[in-house]
Amino acid sequence: MPRDTLTDEETRFVRRARVARLGTASAGGQPNVVPVCFELLDGRIYIGLDSKPKSVAHLRLRRVRNILENPRVSFLVDWYDDDWSRLGYVMITASATLDLQESERGRAIFALRSKYPQYLRLLPDDAPVIRVTPIRVSSWGNTDDDD
Amino acid sequence: MPRDTLTDEETRFVRRARVARLGTASAGGQPNVVPVCFELLDGRIYIGLDSKPKSVAHLRLRRVRNILENPRVSFLVDWYDDDWSRLGYVMITASATLDLQESERGRAIFALRSKYPQYLRLLPDDAPVIRVTPIRVSSWGNTDDDD
Repeated sequence: MPRDTLTDEETRFVRRARVARLGTASAGGQPNVVPVCFELLDGRIYIGLDSKPKSVAHLRLRRVRNILENPRVSFLVDWYDDDWSRLGYVMITASATLDLQESERGRAIFALRSKYPQYLRLLPDDAPVIRVTPIRVSSWGNTDDDD
Repeated sequence: MPRDTLTDEETRFVRRARVARLGTASAGGQPNVVPVCFELLDGRIYIGLDSKPKSVAHLRLRRVRNILENPRVSFLVDWYDDDWSRLGYVMITASATLDLQESERGRAIFALRSKYPQYLRLLPDDAPVIRVTPIRVSSWGNTDDDD
């Protein structure tokens, strides 16, 4: 049965991760995977776009151009261990947008700065934020608390 | 200047990694990102498909169906550290296929078992192998030896 929400165990697993990977694709179907810092808030994932010399530069980011062309994304949090009984992942097929209301964008900036103190310096108040809304959530392997 | 080969430093960074992420997309443009074990041989990346109850089951894997529909992939090796001066990645836009000659597939199986001893048990002699051929290679940040 497809789910668009995370279980409590999946939520804990995702929130513990410091890095995830975001896959986007151009309208022409070329995938692009990047490592991302993120925070999960009320079942949605928020990814900030770091400080750049000019805000127009964000449009040069492949992930941004892809999302504007094609909002379908794949968001992955996984845990690797050479003991393969400890492998685990949460995989989220989702829809992404940069078109957030100011209150929501502000809340995301605050949450991202709380998780990553580096963002106090690197994520300006007016930074664009990508919101990733889950459509289908699945997980596999060891997503327990005890790693 | 776009490159389709890895520098020596990129090669070392990629070969040190135990896990990478592979992004594929369906013909309809839905991306899918999965964690993968892999080995780099002569500038190409090989990913084995683990033992499954029946070989036909491999066709049920989203990554396999996507590659058959659309060979364009994105292969990412990244290093995360809360000290962001140590972040680094190698990102490879590539073409993927499962259509390998026996000698090449055998060599890949051998290399994968050498890197991951678990595969001595889990990767059968006749396991399908995905070959990822780089088209455009880029890297960023700290990809030095000393992590």
